[in-house]
Amino acid sequence: MSIAAKFSRLGTDNAPGQEVRQGSADILTLLRGEPLPGVPVDFSHGDVDAHEPTPGSFEVFSTGVALGGAQAYTEYRGDIAIRELIGGRLAAFTGAPVDVGDGLIVTPGTQGALFLAVAATVARGDKVAVVQPDYFANRKLVEFFEGEMLPVQLRHVEAPAGRSGLDLGELEDAFKAGARVFLFSNPNNPTGVVYSADEIGRIAALAEKYGAKVIVDQLYSRLLYAGVAYTHLRAQALDPENVVTIMGPSKTESLSGYRLGVAFGSKEIVARMEKLQAIVSLRAAGYSQAVLRTWFAEPEGWMDERIRRHQAIRDDLLAVLRGIEGVFARTPEAGSYLFPRLPALAIPHAGFVKALRLQAGVVVTPGTEFSPHTGDSVRLNFSQDHAAAVAAVERLALLVARYRA
Amino acid sequence: MSIAAKFSRLGTDNAPGQEVRQGSADILTLLRGEPLPGVPVDFSHGDVDAHEPTPGSFEVFSTGVALGGAQAYTEYRGDIAIRELIGGRLAAFTGAPVDVGDGLIVTPGTQGALFLAVAATVARGDKVAVVQPDYFANRKLVEFFEGEMLPVQLRHVEAPAGRSGLDLGELEDAFKAGARVFLFSNPNNPTGVVYSADEIGRIAALAEKYGAKVIVDQLYSRLLYAGVAYTHLRAQALDPENVVTIMGPSKTESLSGYRLGVAFGSKEIVARMEKLQAIVSLRAAGYSQAVLRTWFAEPEGWMDERIRRHQAIRDDLLAVLRGIEGVFARTPEAGSYLFPRLPALAIPHAGFVKALRLQAGVVVTPGTEFSPHTGDSVRLNFSQDHAAAVAAVERLALLVARYRA
Repeated sequence: MSIAAKFSRLGTDNAPGQEVRQGSADILTLLRGEPLPGVPVDFSHGDVDAHEPTPGSFEVFSTGVALGGAQAYTEYRGDIAIRELIGGRLAAFTGAPVDVGDGLIVTPGTQGALFLAVAATVARGDKVAVVQPDYFANRKLVEFFEGEMLPVQLRHVEAPAGRSGLDLGELEDAFKAGARVFLFSNPNNPTGVVYSADEIGRIAALAEKYGAKVIVDQLYSRLLYAGVAYTHLRAQALDPENVVTIMGPSKTESLSGYRLGVAFGSKEIVARMEKLQAIVSLRAAGYSQAVLRTWFAEPEGWMDERIRRHQAIRDDLLAVLRGIEGVFARTPEAGSYLFPRLPALAIPHAGFVKALRLQAGVVVTPGTEFSPHTGDSVRLNFSQDHAAAVAAVERLALLVARYRA
Repeated sequence: MSIAAKFSRLGTDNAPGQEVRQGSADILTLLRGEPLPGVPVDFSHGDVDAHEPTPGSFEVFSTGVALGGAQAYTEYRGDIAIRELIGGRLAAFTGAPVDVGDGLIVTPGTQGALFLAVAATVARGDKVAVVQPDYFANRKLVEFFEGEMLPVQLRHVEAPAGRSGLDLGELEDAFKAGARVFLFSNPNNPTGVVYSADEIGRIAALAEKYGAKVIVDQLYSRLLYAGVAYTHLRAQALDPENVVTIMGPSKTESLSGYRLGVAFGSKEIVARMEKLQAIVSLRAAGYSQAVLRTWFAEPEGWMDERIRRHQAIRDDLLAVLRGIEGVFARTPEAGSYLFPRLPALAIPHAGFVKALRLQAGVVVTPGTEFSPHTGDSVRLNFSQDHAAAVAAVERLALLVARYRA
């Protein structure tokens, strides 16, 4: 594939946070009515001013800077003392051992971990099972490494409560067709559904049966709402060398500004990831690594309060969305994403996303980023100021009415 | 290429900073004599405790954290206000305009910039001209993207003072053979030679003649010793869309702990780099980006003093090295690397590097990392405590005597 062709597939114009680089000339003639006043809300990512970083994180960073060279330069896979500290916590959280010497790597954000994990498992022409919808980078990563994507549908709209709706038959078909890597997020990004214990067990059994490697992005697995059970794939009965789990403190903990992630599990894959990290970015910023000391060691009650506040925002936004005729919105079980399906509109949904930004000061991520089949949905990261978020979704409701087909 | 084959070429066992992961069983039986006492010195990278980060850098970082979400989340290519600030300074430094909107990207370290720049220009099977010796990642990057490396020798040992010794005939041969990308560092890492104005002019002319893109890593171009002239490739007469310049504040400024780099020049290549950064690491850590505000704005006299201290260390180490019979050591004209060629030894040079670490507490990087033809050389980053560095090189001299063939 030529370099131009390779990069033409890597569009980022609609990626969250990149809206500032978009043109809007194409939509201006289609706009109806006047702008709607209100506090602008950028639902493309969480608002770390409304939900502040973990208490003490900056102080721990400062201590890292004061340590000097010992913290600035670490093994490429991260400082061993920090790996030892968080390894035990991650083992306790996920219910399976973590080898801090050989089975854990610190990366620049979970994006860094995902990139390295896919690079370490997918060669040109390899078949990879990818969920639709799922985090938009998954598809792009497989395409960048010239793997062949075998889509597996997540039927979250039809699934009963408590199940994600992953089409396990399609997953097995993908394995039968030769896929030896399965990449998915749990909770699912963008829908916020959590895979049931039964579903995770069956994914594990299928991966074991076909000898497939599984990369599971559990970035939001700590932000779990009341009454939801979470099952860690890595604690299931399958070869631990075939599983890589990815997490990070960038979302629930609002530590995105430090760019930290971790991948843990398969020693062979982690070894490859470190080799590649050496030429991709060397290491996660040394000083930032220190901030991991606060992870899973937040003040008593802090996480409960963070979840409670997000659940309250979630419920209020769901009430507004469900008041719009023709909108489907499943209740997210974890994380801070809503993925409402909008009714038919008189303009293309991509145009509606631009109209929302231009006329209502509301930035959302178009559903096409996550699956070719979810162009009528939009993703909202509701980790926002509560009142501003509700008002913004009320403006979205007004614009749906204005543009309804 | 299979994934296993791809990663088997990406060895990092001898990469700087990774020595901690090395075994030493193979060398133990070959060791002669007793350990040499002394303060351990790790010449694989600079000592940011001996040469501290730019004054005020931590305070500027703190201000970035206080800014909150606006600093945590930026465009993938970096915060526009910061790009505007440093764009003007980089234009003034390099003597050619910088387009801060479309021709500049902030990356996680210069390693991040190099990775993205090579990814954005080298497709499978593309021929790439690479200098030998040069920064070890250059070769690995070309190999990772399955490019074909066409080596161009840097004859720094034979070159007269004031010239790098790049074999310009070999460079033209590489272009004639189809190379359309040339990747090199100036000052050269590991030798510390600076390309002359004539050499840079001829590189520019050759690139222009063959329509080749040039990626020039100028990481150490600010640490220039007395009397040395530096010529910026991007200010020469060649299509600016064919040049990407890479710099960063991690070395001279001792800001490595923040992991910051920049690439600037070709808008087309920068656009591709941003697309890829979106799936590799999203962005340089948002808070860290704030530290770039201190770059090229250091306190009056600070850079002069930094250079003066490094020049003093350089000269003292050169005196010790040149006192060892059979050692060749060219005077570095910029940067903080020495690349002495050692005499014939009774053990392989790779074993000597391990013996140095085990018996003298001295870590150096083996010459094989930089070129297949420089296995008898070792690289020392002399940005160290002055006295400790001199003592460490004196121990190196003792060990050379002990193992001399």
